[in-house]
Amino acid sequence: STINLAVIPGDGIGPEVIAEALKVLEKAVAAEGVVLEQTHYKLGAEHWLATGETLPDEVLADLRTQDAILFGAVGAAPGDTRIPSGIIEREMLLKLRFSLDHYVNLRPSRLYGTVGSPLANPGIIDFIVVREGTEGPYVGNGGSLRTGTPHEVATEVSLNTAYGVERVVRDAFRRASTRDRKHVTLVHKHNVLVYAGHLWKRTVEAVAQEFPEVTHDYLHVDAATIFMVTNPSRFDVIVTDNLFGDILTDLAAAVTGGIGLAASGNINMDRTAPSMFEPVHGSAPDIAGQQKADPTAAILSAVLLLDHLGYTAAARRIEAAVIADVETRDGGARSTSAVGDAIAAAL
Amino acid sequence: STINLAVIPGDGIGPEVIAEALKVLEKAVAAEGVVLEQTHYKLGAEHWLATGETLPDEVLADLRTQDAILFGAVGAAPGDTRIPSGIIEREMLLKLRFSLDHYVNLRPSRLYGTVGSPLANPGIIDFIVVREGTEGPYVGNGGSLRTGTPHEVATEVSLNTAYGVERVVRDAFRRASTRDRKHVTLVHKHNVLVYAGHLWKRTVEAVAQEFPEVTHDYLHVDAATIFMVTNPSRFDVIVTDNLFGDILTDLAAAVTGGIGLAASGNINMDRTAPSMFEPVHGSAPDIAGQQKADPTAAILSAVLLLDHLGYTAAARRIEAAVIADVETRDGGARSTSAVGDAIAAAL
Ligand SMILES: CC(C)[C@H](C(=O)O)[C@@H](O)C(=O)O
Ligand SMILES: CC(C)[C@H](C(=O)O)[C@@H](O)C(=O)O
Repeated sequence: STINLAVIPGDGIGPEVIAEALKVLEKAVAAEGVVLEQTHYKLGAEHWLATGETLPDEVLADLRTQDAILFGAVGAAPGDTRIPSGIIEREMLLKLRFSLDHYVNLRPSRLYGTVGSPLANPGIIDFIVVREGTEGPYVGNGGSLRTGTPHEVATEVSLNTAYGVERVVRDAFRRASTRDRKHVTLVHKHNVLVYAGHLWKRTVEAVAQEFPEVTHDYLHVDAATIFMVTNPSRFDVIVTDNLFGDILTDLAAAVTGGIGLAASGNINMDRTAPSMFEPVHGSAPDIAGQQKADPTAAILSAVLLLDHLGYTAAARRIEAAVIADVETRDGGARSTSAVGDAIAAAL
Repeated sequence: STINLAVIPGDGIGPEVIAEALKVLEKAVAAEGVVLEQTHYKLGAEHWLATGETLPDEVLADLRTQDAILFGAVGAAPGDTRIPSGIIEREMLLKLRFSLDHYVNLRPSRLYGTVGSPLANPGIIDFIVVREGTEGPYVGNGGSLRTGTPHEVATEVSLNTAYGVERVVRDAFRRASTRDRKHVTLVHKHNVLVYAGHLWKRTVEAVAQEFPEVTHDYLHVDAATIFMVTNPSRFDVIVTDNLFGDILTDLAAAVTGGIGLAASGNINMDRTAPSMFEPVHGSAPDIAGQQKADPTAAILSAVLLLDHLGYTAAARRIEAAVIADVETRDGGARSTSAVGDAIAAAL
């Protein structure tokens, strides 16, 4: 069989880490007789500077015909004033997530060994965050009045629908039901964000009825950040909105050894469009092109991609190779491609 | 002279920790010939259960006549279904912050010794968060349509004004200008929350002109949580919106040894109404009435209160006594009043 894979390497370290992910992915599927048919797309800050394009309609239409998307990272250097702030993020990355209805933003957090954690006693960390990906404060529904004057008013609207919340909450419970601890924690701030918060809370109570084997609890987002550093072992499956999920998953990545290891999937569970897999880290322009970036997060994103497409045996083999590699790391510097080579060799 | 002090002990551990704060406060100001004239107000979840009152207009009017408010904690036990979720928080605590125009929510984070930090290598941590207190997603401007049906839509609106952002940003720069490192970090998410984010960013750029001796940088909120656990020493003064400030200060409290030590001030810098000082922790109903709560956060809140009222000598003396006490803690259990006694004795 064949996987039609769209590849968007992007900016900065994106191309370097994606090259390693493809190296490993290709070898893993080849062993099962699967052909990886790649189509590479030039998109991102560099491409915008060259062409003024963020995500043309034809490219989006073409991406829809693929089985999955492997995404590197996008974003200009922080000091680069040629690019209006956030334009690539919103008109390209977020546009992909919203257009392709990536409502499950899946971000696993696992501590491999204790080497990398900034916590003194991290304990066993193994949870997943199911972040809503198509609603909340990310909908782009804001505005400003009297901009630039002393009378300016700027708004941002968080939009939450029963439809959108229910499908992602159900996904979280379904994932929890397949895990050892079978526990879902809803994170929100319903004592302040009453309307959105109560929709989330009521939805969790309702969906929980369908999964009697899954337990659940609730944490305000501020309290959740405390547990993330004092007792991350308490988490099994976290379900939360788009913005709280953004914040919690960066923090989770940090406590499990850094965003060099954090993978994510932007998943359309209804399969009405291809899902997209990307490292949580950004384009890190400061170290780009120097073979300094850790490709592990990109490789683990390829694992999530294989899982989503049903190639679970290949996924498990890459995962095992990654774990073996990570657990023997001694902090010595290896080039991006050396890490990719080592993991590919261990397959 | 006399300090007319409103005392709102509240629920759970509130009364216990406030008793110790008053013990220390009273002794510290008495040494300077200042009389502490206390008026105690019964407010909170218990009071609501007994009377149905959250914050009656007459009480609010009376509070306005006081010099300052010392606040314990409010909130019902998590399982208590008699109290509609969040009603005390919003109609009492947040109503106080908004009505009394507490636009500077000041939350210092300092690591005393390294004993309590969950971080393996915390380094020197000494920063303050200037959290906006009267705007943002906390304004209560949300709604829900077709509530409880599959077609429900729930919204939350973040409101941000040039007036509101500028005064808190200026306060942050002013505070930074009196500190050693003189550095302000704006935390927001302007690549997604474009309108609010750009108002904050433009305001910081503009106000920075008035403080040429103060440097500044910017972090997205997700990145800020990473630095909070990998390099908290990098922070000097953080200025941020109401919701991001809520999240960051709980995380900051955790990395500096827990919310048993985290103090806060809800400050009206224009002095058009009394400011309010409260520990960051909540009412902790599970340990209430058992003399198990740490009163240090309440005592340090009294320090912020004295600073605000201009009694800086008394403030420094309490602070020194707290630091001496905290740095000699050996993890052994002491009762709430034993901690208060020890700090009072050390004055
Ligand atoms: C780049 C940015 C828009 C994005 C987000 O906020 O979702 C990133 O932080 C992430 O978590 O993938
Ligand atoms: C109780 C709650 C409304 C409050 C807040 O969100 O501001 C608390 O978390 C705090 O930080 O003081």
